[in-house]
Amino acid sequence: MSNRWILSEYDVESPFQQPAPFLKTAKSHGLSVTHTRLIGGRRDGVELLTVQNGDFSFTTIPSRGMGIHLAKHGETRLGWDSPIEGPVHPRFVPLFDPSGLGWLDGMDELIVRCGLESNGAPEFDTESGRLKYGLHGRIANQPTEDVVVEVSEGGEMCISGEVRETRFLCYNVALKTEIRTKSGENGFRIRDQIINRSAKPSSAQMLYHINLGAPILGEGASVVCPVSEICPRDDHAATSIDTWSTYLPPTAGYAEQVYFMQLAADADGKTCALLKNAAGDKAVSVHFNVKQLPYFVLWKNTAAVEDGYVTGLEPATNFPNPRGFEADHGRTIQLAPGQTYDIDLGLQFHPTAESVAEAEAVIAGLVEGKEAKVHTTPQSAWCG
Amino acid sequence: MSNRWILSEYDVESPFQQPAPFLKTAKSHGLSVTHTRLIGGRRDGVELLTVQNGDFSFTTIPSRGMGIHLAKHGETRLGWDSPIEGPVHPRFVPLFDPSGLGWLDGMDELIVRCGLESNGAPEFDTESGRLKYGLHGRIANQPTEDVVVEVSEGGEMCISGEVRETRFLCYNVALKTEIRTKSGENGFRIRDQIINRSAKPSSAQMLYHINLGAPILGEGASVVCPVSEICPRDDHAATSIDTWSTYLPPTAGYAEQVYFMQLAADADGKTCALLKNAAGDKAVSVHFNVKQLPYFVLWKNTAAVEDGYVTGLEPATNFPNPRGFEADHGRTIQLAPGQTYDIDLGLQFHPTAESVAEAEAVIAGLVEGKEAKVHTTPQSAWCG
Amino acid sequence: MSNRWILSEYDVESPFQQPAPFLKTAKSHGLSVTHTRLIGGRRDGVELLTVQNGDFSFTTIPSRGMGIHLAKHGETRLGWDSPIEGPVHPRFVPLFDPSGLGWLDGMDELIVRCGLESNGAPEFDTESGRLKYGLHGRIANQPTEDVVVEVSEGGEMCISGEVRETRFLCYNVALKTEIRTKSGENGFRIRDQIINRSAKPSSAQMLYHINLGAPILGEGASVVCPVSEICPRDDHAATSIDTWSTYLPPTAGYAEQVYFMQLAADADGKTCALLKNAAGDKAVSVHFNVKQLPYFVLWKNTAAVEDGYVTGLEPATNFPNPRGFEADHGRTIQLAPGQTYDIDLGLQFHPTAESVAEAEAVIAGLVEGKEAKVHTTPQSAWCG
Repeated sequence: MSNRWILSEYDVESPFQQPAPFLKTAKSHGLSVTHTRLIGGRRDGVELLTVQNGDFSFTTIPSRGMGIHLAKHGETRLGWDSPIEGPVHPRFVPLFDPSGLGWLDGMDELIVRCGLESNGAPEFDTESGRLKYGLHGRIANQPTEDVVVEVSEGGEMCISGEVRETRFLCYNVALKTEIRTKSGENGFRIRDQIINRSAKPSSAQMLYHINLGAPILGEGASVVCPVSEICPRDDHAATSIDTWSTYLPPTAGYAEQVYFMQLAADADGKTCALLKNAAGDKAVSVHFNVKQLPYFVLWKNTAAVEDGYVTGLEPATNFPNPRGFEADHGRTIQLAPGQTYDIDLGLQFHPTAESVAEAEAVIAGLVEGKEAKVHTTPQSAWCG
Repeated sequence: MSNRWILSEYDVESPFQQPAPFLKTAKSHGLSVTHTRLIGGRRDGVELLTVQNGDFSFTTIPSRGMGIHLAKHGETRLGWDSPIEGPVHPRFVPLFDPSGLGWLDGMDELIVRCGLESNGAPEFDTESGRLKYGLHGRIANQPTEDVVVEVSEGGEMCISGEVRETRFLCYNVALKTEIRTKSGENGFRIRDQIINRSAKPSSAQMLYHINLGAPILGEGASVVCPVSEICPRDDHAATSIDTWSTYLPPTAGYAEQVYFMQLAADADGKTCALLKNAAGDKAVSVHFNVKQLPYFVLWKNTAAVEDGYVTGLEPATNFPNPRGFEADHGRTIQLAPGQTYDIDLGLQFHPTAESVAEAEAVIAGLVEGKEAKVHTTPQSAWCG
Repeated sequence: MSNRWILSEYDVESPFQQPAPFLKTAKSHGLSVTHTRLIGGRRDGVELLTVQNGDFSFTTIPSRGMGIHLAKHGETRLGWDSPIEGPVHPRFVPLFDPSGLGWLDGMDELIVRCGLESNGAPEFDTESGRLKYGLHGRIANQPTEDVVVEVSEGGEMCISGEVRETRFLCYNVALKTEIRTKSGENGFRIRDQIINRSAKPSSAQMLYHINLGAPILGEGASVVCPVSEICPRDDHAATSIDTWSTYLPPTAGYAEQVYFMQLAADADGKTCALLKNAAGDKAVSVHFNVKQLPYFVLWKNTAAVEDGYVTGLEPATNFPNPRGFEADHGRTIQLAPGQTYDIDLGLQFHPTAESVAEAEAVIAGLVEGKEAKVHTTPQSAWCG
């Protein structure tokens, strides 16, 4: 028997004081989901869904585009300590700050989607100087509609919802998302659909900013991924190209270093990147398909703990340059009227040296006999 | 005996958990009003008042400047399917997006007021390039204060409130609104007062964006109004000047066409415009006074259903050009300290061929023996 | 025995419908505090804490950076009638309006803090024309986290909380505030700590905009302060330098006049400024330390009552010029990593001629034998 709870269905007859159908905690097949609404400060009004699956748990944020706030395995936290100390309600995130940097006021999550009309660095109109596209787009600060939690007979929970980025006459692309976890799984899988709801052709971009800090990240931690081609984003990153895959301890004044890549994959396009701790006995792996997400960005921000000691593993449809540069280089998703672009993304936790080694072996297999093309300087077609 | 319910009066002693005097549904003289607060998504926190008057009903949105979300007569919906799928809480409408187009993120209503300091196309400072006036102004995204519902002994319901557009030292003009419907009426009447609350002279603009889609709008639907003078807004609209009063079916890729007019009126200034369906057995008429609203705009946006198949009948104090152009042409309301500018606007539904013909006869009477001045190209004094 | 209530502590387990630990009214040692959350209009969702201390009461606004909305002594109101008619929820204050003036949409309080990254007039990027710093900064429109009310054994109430101004990678300075009042006191004392939470050096500015209208302000009211040096902000203020310390009645069309000063102080740096009514039997004094707040601004805005008849006594770390000008003149607070800058500020009400005379005598003592340096024109190092 399958269980289905509609969390955000409301009835225009139901006043505020008699809230819409609402669920504190529901359980099924050893899985539970808890619905919370935070009160006070910058979190005021933020809704959360926390899923408990044995030792593994994670929290999604319907109020923030169904991003993933954090995950946990026992006492091990997957996520990072952002100086933002969120989750921040979108009303406190000034996406339209003329500087284009307002998005940074809410950056706090383990997984934050960057899109849909654009992601990457802000872009300004060359003539008027006015902001055209703010940093990393709008989707992470839009609330989710039609949130539903379901548990199938087979014991798989699915949280679904839709996030809309709509400006009348201008843009109408939606993100349908499903987040799944099966009883006993140490992770979750996301299926996102980017849908052009307009009768006119449209376009989109998507980048998954997957952010990890301590305890997985630490001095001597490393990223393992099947690099096919890599280059530093800028001259500053170029100075450390030799150590791109390893991490410093928290370092006051560290300026972020970013590497752009393409990864090798299996015949179906499936690939994987992981971050493991220094001891090699804990890791987080990210699973995706290069047919859907052909680019991969590694963001290293091993700054002081107070400033956010964190690294980002970022599969994407493009590089996070200003949108115009990416469009010129063909790195936007073109969407015919009504067309959908599917993306599958998984995150798994590896709690033992054995499970880490197993995941590494899979990655090693993807590059066996192939040589990575390593550029020691920024490449003009990739770095805008 | 008259009934009076104060909906938004609050007491600083009453905490959130014990809400201010609040009314789920109240009934009197065969009229009812229901107060709702929506939960979830972009609607989160939006307050609605839904009035039922026999077969006719309509919903106002205190949270959005007391606009009219939609009306219904039996199964016939008066309104349109905006891709926005609102009502959207103002917190998700970035009025100050540097592009000046943020207003479009909330455009969803049957009647949305455009004003008060400005309406029309965005205007930018010529020197700095910075936004001066965003598209269609702020008033539709300001919440309403002091909301009261009253039913008179004669069986007329009146919903009143005040919407403020105030920037300390800069602007302080308020909109006092009363929306009335009488038992058995297939419509409602709005009395708006634009009040300069400052001791200094001020100015204002107002446009009523009255938006209708299916089922009234459809292939072969037509607008009937007592044109005295008309011109196309731009060259694109000029190409279809011959068919300005009739409508295409939903047409993918249709680019909006806009016509600027002045209408004939009776000796008191009263006039009327209506939209009727192809069969001519259903229509919506809009009633106003050319002494208060001397200009009339017809907005045709017969795009695909997905992109918002809709037309706008828009009585106004000015044409929706950038504010500076309108000021140069004397089309702003000048307000002495404390002065009030009154506007009366009615919307009525005509459910039968007979009632449509009757309304058309009134309009025909207004132009009997007069010839409309039809410009086939944009006129420089009207089109900025 | 000490009492401690944590108002904003929330538990991710507690859903919206079962609110976080919450207190309607709590009493101790003859002091009471009432927690309110407003509903409707632009106040929707604003939280207030109202403290009653015998005849004296005051209201702080956690939702608005823990500013002081108003105070009262018996029937005498300390505060002013802003045309804004707030308190306004920050969501209705467009801090990032490209004009830089959005802050004025919420200006309503008795005490509003201006800072932290900047205060003063807006500043724009000279090349692009884009807004860099909006008028008076962000801190007054940020919600307060971790609000706690405590009453000590000695009968002193302390309301504390933290307001954060954080942009990831850019700025991370917090304001820790404590507001204290002792049983029987006709006022309150604020201790603010400006904390650089980053591991990198940072900087800040702070100005306390303390605003008073009728009944203390009125024709013939005057400000008394131990001027050491004074100059008019601009040529307009220069025309009235001779009457800088006295007030006109409400005057339609009055354009604000501002005077920049440095005040004399005692050996510890303590100083005081007061506003007394025409009769000299009521006054409000402001107490601060010139080692913490070396500059003092007098803002005279004796406009018509409708436009906000008000004067501002404003101790500050700088003059309210654009931030760049102040930085060039060394008037920013430099903060090493983790460093804290302390500020003490008191406000006291003097309800009788005797108590006013006493306060004046203290001020007279501070300038005894010293001559004030009065500039009749704006000084280039002070006025940017």
